[in-house]
Amino acid sequence: MKLSRLGEFALIDRIRRATPSGPGVLLGIGDDAAWVESRSGSILITSDLLIQDVHFKLQWTSLFALGHKALAVNLSDIAAMGGKPAYLILALGIPAHFKFAQVSEFYRGINSLCSKTGVVLVGGDTNVAKSFIISVCVIGHAVYRPVRRSGAQIGNDIYVTGTLGDSSLGLKLLQSGRLRSNRGFAAYLVSRHRQPTPRVVVGETIARWRLATAMIDISDGLLQDLGHICQASGLGAEIWRDKLPLSAAYRAMTGKDGVSHALNGGEDYELLFCARRRDRTRLEDLSKRAKVPITRIGRCLAAREVIRAIDGSGKPVSVPSKGYDHFRNSSRLAK
Amino acid sequence: MKLSRLGEFALIDRIRRATPSGPGVLLGIGDDAAWVESRSGSILITSDLLIQDVHFKLQWTSLFALGHKALAVNLSDIAAMGGKPAYLILALGIPAHFKFAQVSEFYRGINSLCSKTGVVLVGGDTNVAKSFIISVCVIGHAVYRPVRRSGAQIGNDIYVTGTLGDSSLGLKLLQSGRLRSNRGFAAYLVSRHRQPTPRVVVGETIARWRLATAMIDISDGLLQDLGHICQASGLGAEIWRDKLPLSAAYRAMTGKDGVSHALNGGEDYELLFCARRRDRTRLEDLSKRAKVPITRIGRCLAAREVIRAIDGSGKPVSVPSKGYDHFRNSSRLAK
Repeated sequence: MKLSRLGEFALIDRIRRATPSGPGVLLGIGDDAAWVESRSGSILITSDLLIQDVHFKLQWTSLFALGHKALAVNLSDIAAMGGKPAYLILALGIPAHFKFAQVSEFYRGINSLCSKTGVVLVGGDTNVAKSFIISVCVIGHAVYRPVRRSGAQIGNDIYVTGTLGDSSLGLKLLQSGRLRSNRGFAAYLVSRHRQPTPRVVVGETIARWRLATAMIDISDGLLQDLGHICQASGLGAEIWRDKLPLSAAYRAMTGKDGVSHALNGGEDYELLFCARRRDRTRLEDLSKRAKVPITRIGRCLAAREVIRAIDGSGKPVSVPSKGYDHFRNSSRLAK
Repeated sequence: MKLSRLGEFALIDRIRRATPSGPGVLLGIGDDAAWVESRSGSILITSDLLIQDVHFKLQWTSLFALGHKALAVNLSDIAAMGGKPAYLILALGIPAHFKFAQVSEFYRGINSLCSKTGVVLVGGDTNVAKSFIISVCVIGHAVYRPVRRSGAQIGNDIYVTGTLGDSSLGLKLLQSGRLRSNRGFAAYLVSRHRQPTPRVVVGETIARWRLATAMIDISDGLLQDLGHICQASGLGAEIWRDKLPLSAAYRAMTGKDGVSHALNGGEDYELLFCARRRDRTRLEDLSKRAKVPITRIGRCLAAREVIRAIDGSGKPVSVPSKGYDHFRNSSRLAK
């Protein structure tokens, strides 16, 4: 069967089933990061591959921003497990016509986010390639018990950090070629696409305070990533359309009812998690301390793997699920 | 400056100098693997990127062999530090026209070497890409003190495991298109190129018994990789041409004097290390126990960073140094 027919998630599932486990593996394929034992502690490992013209276009980003983003998406995976990111390994395929100044700018973007998050670049590999290929592996410490996708319970609240859909709208602006200014709402949305903020401190605090029963970061769209939590936890969910956190820029660009980017747009890199009702006050406290919005957007239901969105009066909202699948969409960048 | 002019090693050196170190990093950029502290133990991390038509051609390998090799080259890096490989993270860029059976064959090659070496595939990332891109990250335990490149001392013996140049000759055969049979010397050389044997047990035992003062694996050619040891250790070396371990297949294909593949051919993935004279007997013992040839091929000299090769009568052998540089050679596969 061709992969374009099989689809990304069926492929991952088949790989997972064909992969034997082994000693020391606390959590293998199928969550945001792997969780393994080292000699006496335990570590989290995550890896992402960013390929030119699949994940990014060089004309749409600075190399500084690209360095930032390549690291940020991996930090987001560690954050989604509640881990403390520590080490970065970077393997690059670099076009031979690149100038050293370009590579240097990329590394400045990497190093800038490293110093903000306490992560250290410890090694990697450089190769020549026809297009720019960035492979990032981040190792984190599992200081607290990692938060998996599978622990959500019926009746749990569903929360999300930050605002949704900005990155997806920003990408749409880049695709349209209508971005004229480096200021204003449009520029804000594009910056959210180019340089997402990994929620490292919030993720780690959630693990420390044991606030979440399940957690994931939103890379493929809210509904799709919520689907992963529902599938792993064996339950369903209800999302309240009118509670979705939208930025002023998002509202200005889409009008009142435009929630499709918030529901299905990818690359938010916000944390999506489920929590017990009794922890509502502590989550408000966390939001204030970390200065990151944390919004309750729904609840977990018994209906297995069914996700429904409702409006303020409880009426169902039609939400065609069309999150991102790598093999069905030939490029994340195609319209 | 263009990277093709700067060269791979100058680039790595510049990146290394621009990269701040941090707490927990025992050894960062510039050795076979990074060596970092985890909560209470310490781990080794290495990463390699294999790109279609840069590092491999699909018409020259089975996907099973490619899976084996992608893991083997990383295990070789862990072996070169004397570590015990434990976990594998695999990020793939897969052409959308690939069939599931092809991906499955690749994973069978990975899993086969995993089960032989006790390594567990714990996670990764799958993406669509125009060509096949394989990013491998391996985490190992630093059970014993890792062996670096920098500890060689004047008067140390120089050793190499296995035989040299087979892989390079095998690649030449593939390039020539003159491989007609799956048997005989030619097939042996090609198999050494397609499925190199990482010297994991030997590397780990060398660290356990503290037999090496410096160690590296040969990926870019004996002289070039010995150059890395000499540079890191601040000394020179003498290599004895007539002692270079050559396979029967190598001898049959090149005649008596053809040592250029053994000296400069890449992708041997044998261990090259320096050891004290007093440990000669223990190294013979290790060779017998591990059933891996370990051959003394030279000695460390005071002459800083000068490597000379001599024949049996002590006369200098002309050895144009032309190991592999990723940015000066556009592809490892080009003739």
